[in-house]
Amino acid sequence: MITGKNYIGNQLSATGSTTFKTFNPLLNLENQWEITEASAEEVNEAVALARQAFHVYSKISGAKKGAFLRSIAKEIEALGDELLEVYSAESGLPKGRAMGERGRTIGQLLAFATHVEEGSWVEASIDTAQPNREPIPKVDLRKMYVALGPVAVFGASNFPLAFSTAGGDTASALAAGCPVIVKSHPMHAGTGELVASAILKAAKNTGMPNGVFSNLNSSGIKVGEMLVQHPGVKAVGFTGSIKGGRALFDLGAKREEPIPVFAEMGSINPVVLLPKSLKNRAQNIAKTYAGSITLGAGQFCTNPGLILGIKSEELTQFINDLAEEIVKIEPSCMLHPNIIGAYETNKAKALSQSELTVLFDYKNEVNANYGKQAVTTVEGDTFLKNTTLHQEVFGPYSLVVQCENKAQLETVISKLEGQLTGTLISDDDEITAYAEVVAALQSRVGRVIFNGVPTGVEVCASMQHGGPYPASTDSRFTAVGVDSIKRWVRPFSYQDWPNHLLPDELKNENPLAILRTINNLKTTDKI
Amino acid sequence: MITGKNYIGNQLSATGSTTFKTFNPLLNLENQWEITEASAEEVNEAVALARQAFHVYSKISGAKKGAFLRSIAKEIEALGDELLEVYSAESGLPKGRAMGERGRTIGQLLAFATHVEEGSWVEASIDTAQPNREPIPKVDLRKMYVALGPVAVFGASNFPLAFSTAGGDTASALAAGCPVIVKSHPMHAGTGELVASAILKAAKNTGMPNGVFSNLNSSGIKVGEMLVQHPGVKAVGFTGSIKGGRALFDLGAKREEPIPVFAEMGSINPVVLLPKSLKNRAQNIAKTYAGSITLGAGQFCTNPGLILGIKSEELTQFINDLAEEIVKIEPSCMLHPNIIGAYETNKAKALSQSELTVLFDYKNEVNANYGKQAVTTVEGDTFLKNTTLHQEVFGPYSLVVQCENKAQLETVISKLEGQLTGTLISDDDEITAYAEVVAALQSRVGRVIFNGVPTGVEVCASMQHGGPYPASTDSRFTAVGVDSIKRWVRPFSYQDWPNHLLPDELKNENPLAILRTINNLKTTDKI
Repeated sequence: MITGKNYIGNQLSATGSTTFKTFNPLLNLENQWEITEASAEEVNEAVALARQAFHVYSKISGAKKGAFLRSIAKEIEALGDELLEVYSAESGLPKGRAMGERGRTIGQLLAFATHVEEGSWVEASIDTAQPNREPIPKVDLRKMYVALGPVAVFGASNFPLAFSTAGGDTASALAAGCPVIVKSHPMHAGTGELVASAILKAAKNTGMPNGVFSNLNSSGIKVGEMLVQHPGVKAVGFTGSIKGGRALFDLGAKREEPIPVFAEMGSINPVVLLPKSLKNRAQNIAKTYAGSITLGAGQFCTNPGLILGIKSEELTQFINDLAEEIVKIEPSCMLHPNIIGAYETNKAKALSQSELTVLFDYKNEVNANYGKQAVTTVEGDTFLKNTTLHQEVFGPYSLVVQCENKAQLETVISKLEGQLTGTLISDDDEITAYAEVVAALQSRVGRVIFNGVPTGVEVCASMQHGGPYPASTDSRFTAVGVDSIKRWVRPFSYQDWPNHLLPDELKNENPLAILRTINNLKTTDKI
Repeated sequence: MITGKNYIGNQLSATGSTTFKTFNPLLNLENQWEITEASAEEVNEAVALARQAFHVYSKISGAKKGAFLRSIAKEIEALGDELLEVYSAESGLPKGRAMGERGRTIGQLLAFATHVEEGSWVEASIDTAQPNREPIPKVDLRKMYVALGPVAVFGASNFPLAFSTAGGDTASALAAGCPVIVKSHPMHAGTGELVASAILKAAKNTGMPNGVFSNLNSSGIKVGEMLVQHPGVKAVGFTGSIKGGRALFDLGAKREEPIPVFAEMGSINPVVLLPKSLKNRAQNIAKTYAGSITLGAGQFCTNPGLILGIKSEELTQFINDLAEEIVKIEPSCMLHPNIIGAYETNKAKALSQSELTVLFDYKNEVNANYGKQAVTTVEGDTFLKNTTLHQEVFGPYSLVVQCENKAQLETVISKLEGQLTGTLISDDDEITAYAEVVAALQSRVGRVIFNGVPTGVEVCASMQHGGPYPASTDSRFTAVGVDSIKRWVRPFSYQDWPNHLLPDELKNENPLAILRTINNLKTTDKI
């Protein structure tokens, strides 16, 4: 049941006076449940509880953290149809997507459970003492990752489950041993509360300390700002716009004690079409990309917003094919009037740029809040001169850039901002003639894709979801996959520490049987 | 031979008009060689060369990078006595220290050579495709660390070799595949030029691209600021003061494209004396600590500037012993008149604080630029009230805080800023009665030491040299040991990429025979 209250630790609380409602974009009306924003006192209380919980939670075993994460997954499943219905009512996304995203969320929680139960992720490293070394004895040193402290997580608008309350940021931070305070996304605060209730049930089931998790409602920026500036918060995870992410990053960097703010932000995900592939299968590629551009109303951070090719008959053919294919697709509902409003504004701005040709701009009447797709094209020269064309238009929109030649294609790529992904469409061995183009693409992105589409982010250990700024605020980390845990931990060394007082990960006996580095060799041996 | 010029790539250059001289603190006069500051054009040229070099250098094999690093080590050795003499002339440090630090510098270079030659450090991870997976096929994903881009390194005043031109930051960045531009420390610019010449000889010997290394002179802040703000620079390494490190961190964070600035800064390295240990061996501990406080004239970042105990007869005895032991030590020469000037100012400020007792303040006449040691003591209450007493006094100075009881000891520790190290002096099993004190200490530091001294930073894989702010600007990384390479790399994923176009680290055949994660299992197997 949605109460509209905040969870301050395990207590429902609504001491503030500001309320708001979420919106059903399919029905084009407000949902009935009323949400109460967290007050400043509630924010402070949540952080105080998280600090207390940290002392205990940061030291519990991987097995116990695993049990907690597994219990969260179970309790989310147990929310049943209510969760799916509220999810759809607050996002306009269909039930199939809700089920898929719930499955992904549960999968992530279980993957982190397995990761911390196994335990080698702490990268335990041991250098044993050499008391007789000349000229000075060598001390015993043992290092492992430990948790940073309470983490503030900002839910994303476009993934009410997988990148929100119990999404990747929360799962990775809890796995790391960090209490989490979620700033719930205002567009799906009801969904957020349901998931928060599942997390807190799981915390109770598995004996976790109060304060290990809190969920704060807010429709403005105040609660988020308070969290990022609070001395008790030691790191931040965010998924959303460049404007929002950069504002939080700046707040984190300006603190007396700066903290890491990992924000995964905008991306236009360039797709490079090489000539032979167009010659062989222009229509096929066009069909695939018409689907990728409009998938989920274009509301994926890996949406292909930029398609690059070299002028040719085949590229012209592809452009015509793309326009034809995208005509066939029915518009679908976007997440919220604000999202569609921003989409229409940004699309109109893009379409109004001089020397740009509109290939297709959906004109038919659609239901309220449905996103009408559009594709456009420009010459390489125009694109290079006009950086407005480099900006993301979040929604079902893409721009095809027709470059003069290979050199201009390379230049266009090298002038792009940092991107989550870059895709190469290439046939046979033509790629070998485009080494500089491929190198330029690799330098701008976190992940390169060969003959595929950038949409669809596989959750696995080898996924990099992040990239050079502004794809993320720190390209050295990923937002997806088990390695995303590294955002929330720091290495810690013990020198000559008594064996029985060391954490299990570093004891001589290796009681957890984890893989460790001992005197520079990887081994599961005891000492 | 010292020319006083900059190395812009492999070319000596001195187009600027500002010159300065280094200073011999032992002789109390300027060294004769004249150094020319890098001009803005030279800074831009060095960055342009580094960007070009990056395209090649970021992709060369671990074997070739290893050969380069080994050649640097050899060329530094080949500088022979000239290096040792200039080192001492520019630092006042004795020849034994010069030789020790040269050995450490060479050891670091060789350790990184071994690390990249072996190759598993890239943390290669492969998830193989599952074309028949339901509901959607699983793509093939392969991830590894790749270099960030050109790195700017700021030499440290207190380690003219091991944390400067070819020190840990440079060695780790070159090992990562990043070209390096050093902003040479003005106090030892001659030493810096000699080492730079060795690096460039090695680059030539091993066929490295021009621009892989540059060395810029500057006595002010302009060259450093230009480097940190230059769009071509992608990361920064710094060792030095909180003021300097924070200023660079802020510049890096404010850029249009923010970059990571890893600064290892100030620390007072608290030492906690537990009662039994004092009862058993107060004099012994006092003697050890008198030595640690004055080691290298107290000019180590791990100098024990704060000693904490609980009021008792034994603590009083220890304090008297410490004063007696420190009397016996002869002052030694500090690095530079500026350093001793700052030391005298900061020490005077500390000594002037109310309710502080001066235990020992060396009053005898000493040579110019010699640092006179001092130790002081205060009550726990006073320390908690006066945060001036929490500030680092860089030099041979330490403060003993006498806490009322165990609870106050815990409070004092928890109120400290972040530290590189924390030390516990404890006998038998008394530590078990101080679990909260130990936990508080661990939460404030990067490394804990049991019954030792914080000075002496072992260079090995298990060393953590860093810590919560302001010990460093990002506690998630270390400045010492092979893992310091992680500051300069980002994960990069290939999706469905053709095997023959993958880097060797990710090819099916595993031609480098490195340890990889394949479908979540660590293995050196082929696919």
